Amino acid sequence: MQKPSIPKGTRDFTPVEMVRRNYIFDTVKIIFQKYGFQPIETPAMENLSTLLGKYGEEGDKLLFRILNSGDFLSDISEQEFSEKNLNRLSLKMCEKGLRYDLTVPFARFVVQHQSEISFPFRRYQIQPVWRADRPQKGRYREFYQCDVDVVGSNSLLNEAELLQIIAEVFNALNIRVLVKLNNRKILSGIAELIGQSDKITDITVAIDKLEKIGIEKVNEELLSKGLSEENIEALQPVIQLSGSNNEKLNQLEILFSCSETGRDGVAEMRAILDYAELLKIPVPIELDLTLARGLNYYTGAIIEVKAADVQIGSICGGGRYDNLTGVFGLPDVSGVGISFGADRIYDVLAQLDAFPAATAQTTKVLFINFGATEEKHVLQLLAKIRESGIHAEIYPEAAKMKKQMAYANSKSVAYVAMAGENEMTENRISLKNMTTGEQTTVTPEEMIKILS
Amino acid sequence: MQKPSIPKGTRDFTPVEMVRRNYIFDTVKIIFQKYGFQPIETPAMENLSTLLGKYGEEGDKLLFRILNSGDFLSDISEQEFSEKNLNRLSLKMCEKGLRYDLTVPFARFVVQHQSEISFPFRRYQIQPVWRADRPQKGRYREFYQCDVDVVGSNSLLNEAELLQIIAEVFNALNIRVLVKLNNRKILSGIAELIGQSDKITDITVAIDKLEKIGIEKVNEELLSKGLSEENIEALQPVIQLSGSNNEKLNQLEILFSCSETGRDGVAEMRAILDYAELLKIPVPIELDLTLARGLNYYTGAIIEVKAADVQIGSICGGGRYDNLTGVFGLPDVSGVGISFGADRIYDVLAQLDAFPAATAQTTKVLFINFGATEEKHVLQLLAKIRESGIHAEIYPEAAKMKKQMAYANSKSVAYVAMAGENEMTENRISLKNMTTGEQTTVTPEEMIKILS
Repeated sequence: MQKPSIPKGTRDFTPVEMVRRNYIFDTVKIIFQKYGFQPIETPAMENLSTLLGKYGEEGDKLLFRILNSGDFLSDISEQEFSEKNLNRLSLKMCEKGLRYDLTVPFARFVVQHQSEISFPFRRYQIQPVWRADRPQKGRYREFYQCDVDVVGSNSLLNEAELLQIIAEVFNALNIRVLVKLNNRKILSGIAELIGQSDKITDITVAIDKLEKIGIEKVNEELLSKGLSEENIEALQPVIQLSGSNNEKLNQLEILFSCSETGRDGVAEMRAILDYAELLKIPVPIELDLTLARGLNYYTGAIIEVKAADVQIGSICGGGRYDNLTGVFGLPDVSGVGISFGADRIYDVLAQLDAFPAATAQTTKVLFINFGATEEKHVLQLLAKIRESGIHAEIYPEAAKMKKQMAYANSKSVAYVAMAGENEMTENRISLKNMTTGEQTTVTPEEMIKILS
Repeated sequence: MQKPSIPKGTRDFTPVEMVRRNYIFDTVKIIFQKYGFQPIETPAMENLSTLLGKYGEEGDKLLFRILNSGDFLSDISEQEFSEKNLNRLSLKMCEKGLRYDLTVPFARFVVQHQSEISFPFRRYQIQPVWRADRPQKGRYREFYQCDVDVVGSNSLLNEAELLQIIAEVFNALNIRVLVKLNNRKILSGIAELIGQSDKITDITVAIDKLEKIGIEKVNEELLSKGLSEENIEALQPVIQLSGSNNEKLNQLEILFSCSETGRDGVAEMRAILDYAELLKIPVPIELDLTLARGLNYYTGAIIEVKAADVQIGSICGGGRYDNLTGVFGLPDVSGVGISFGADRIYDVLAQLDAFPAATAQTTKVLFINFGATEEKHVLQLLAKIRESGIHAEIYPEAAKMKKQMAYANSKSVAYVAMAGENEMTENRISLKNMTTGEQTTVTPEEMIKILS
């Protein structure tokens, strides 16, 4: 006898969890559509040639590979076989892998369907992705991403509209958030300042610790990472940047007198913030130089969203990428997009106890089954009730009352309806409100009114 | 440069296809919920131990297996390695596989979550499944199933309600269907008649050809399959069974005087048909002895649905299985369920040209972008329009009018809105109906009214 289990890092979703997850998915979908975004879906399996090399060396290792069907050894020579080179063997035995994110499949989609697409292409995509990460609390091997992107437009209005969407989604979900904004060009400007563009990650990591460890330790860390005293001196105004977004941008502009890229970044940031003001986007947006997500990936704006009231990683993030489709043969298509992390948003809502009392998707009324005669009577009623769009069921057999009531309770049914001999004669129904315990006798029409 | 492609047998879904597919999924979901069914989801990956041996030898070969991450050769001895036994090697290199259907994962789910579930458990599940089948027209390696099952109840009312759901779904989709009904116990009764239960498949296959090849050829075929003259003689009343459902059942009842199982099957069939009559299920339901799907699987009713106006395989099917969860350690839980084939239903709707004119999910109005000043003005308007739930967008840059109109056309936008210098002064908008070509000048409030 097998004791059933599922692969580590994966999950089943019970009806209660499904209702809650659908609440998140439906909320984002409705908002995406309001902004003119249209859905697409791509296959779970992609050719490994599409996926490999897009997520760095570490990412390649985290791809789930699918064994070729049939003779998966057919393409492997005796010598290759005996060498046991895992990487080479897996490439010969596996042509396909599970998608790792939605961005690379989307880039592939755009190139493959370019003749059917009208640019700028506004698409959203809500699908699971798979990563062979070490599972841990809040990190899964199968999880959902909700991506929304515009490709084929350089306009910074797109960035602004994505910020609007962020505000609207989290407002609808009742989650207070803080939006952090950076720009890859500002980071490049900082690197140009000291002539060391390969040190950008070290610099942002060190700056990030300023509040915790103080300026001296930050400078020590930078020294230990190979920056010169002169470099560190030049970086002081960046590290100690303070004030409002506007004040920070003014200071950066002065610093970037010799960096055109840096000045471009400042100008982009100003334009986006101007849009945000014009649009009265109702969330705090803060310029944050330590924001460096997907450094090799993004070319302009970088966006990250944190929950204000729950300690958890970012719950949404993204940015602009200028050449995503280039690797698939379609150069010069700029895109900007964000991804909502459905699983983390779920955890935030759970911690805040902010899920709506979701009864819409469960059964509204359960008819007790008293036996063949009563069942016949009730089945006619049931059809009428369902015709009105009410979620209704009858217990499928004349089990003990206690059992049927236990079923109603466990399914959180709002009402239990009883039509025994007496009620049948009068064509009425005894209706019990399962929340209040109140019981009334009503006509079928009154019942439909109450349940609607 | 890579030329992008996707694995054979898989598909991308463009926005137009998504809207059409969602129309099918939403239709079935709403009806499932009305009948008190609740959604669950299971992971794409299951342990191979859960999947293997559940779909026959052929099915095992069609499972997509996932290469273990890390050192996938670690568990393989030198000798095993050099033997190149594909089956053994794949078992050692792969612990997980992609789900092949929704039924086995559901059985696993029920056993694993039995303490959280209230039986009878009414669940639906709409997810993709994967099979390494040879791809061909209408057969894919990734496709969606929409399953709806009741487990933990022997009542035949469940079968009847599933027939109701079938009628309601295809009525909602405007597809005329024919429902075919059989019962495993009737088939067992027939086998008992001649004392050859292993010949049931041969018998049903032969009977199925009656109309095409005539009774003599059918009998010849049965002879060639190893049935005796005596067997064939005894089978004549079955092969030539005719008349209404009721007449057929009467004849079978007489034939089954020595087969209790057969008589049980007839009684079950009568009970289900009685329910169908009581419920006035508005689709033709026909007793069909040749219906033998999932013979090793189903123990009672067998259901299959054919489109009346399109030549295509069955578009929905299912039946009762008495011991689905037994293999996972939970015996004596009876279940009954059906599965809607979303892809075939899609093909039927496409052939019948019966998709609704689905505009709800695309953009209702596109604002032309005339430049910075006008854009600022329009962005305020846009916020108000979206607040009313209208799907609206502005072209993100002041491109040539021709380009913006081409975009509106390709996206099948219903209206194009223009607010240039003149309109701005008067706080009005020129609104062009893209279907009629008609253009009017309206206030923002009038515009919202028109678009709502």
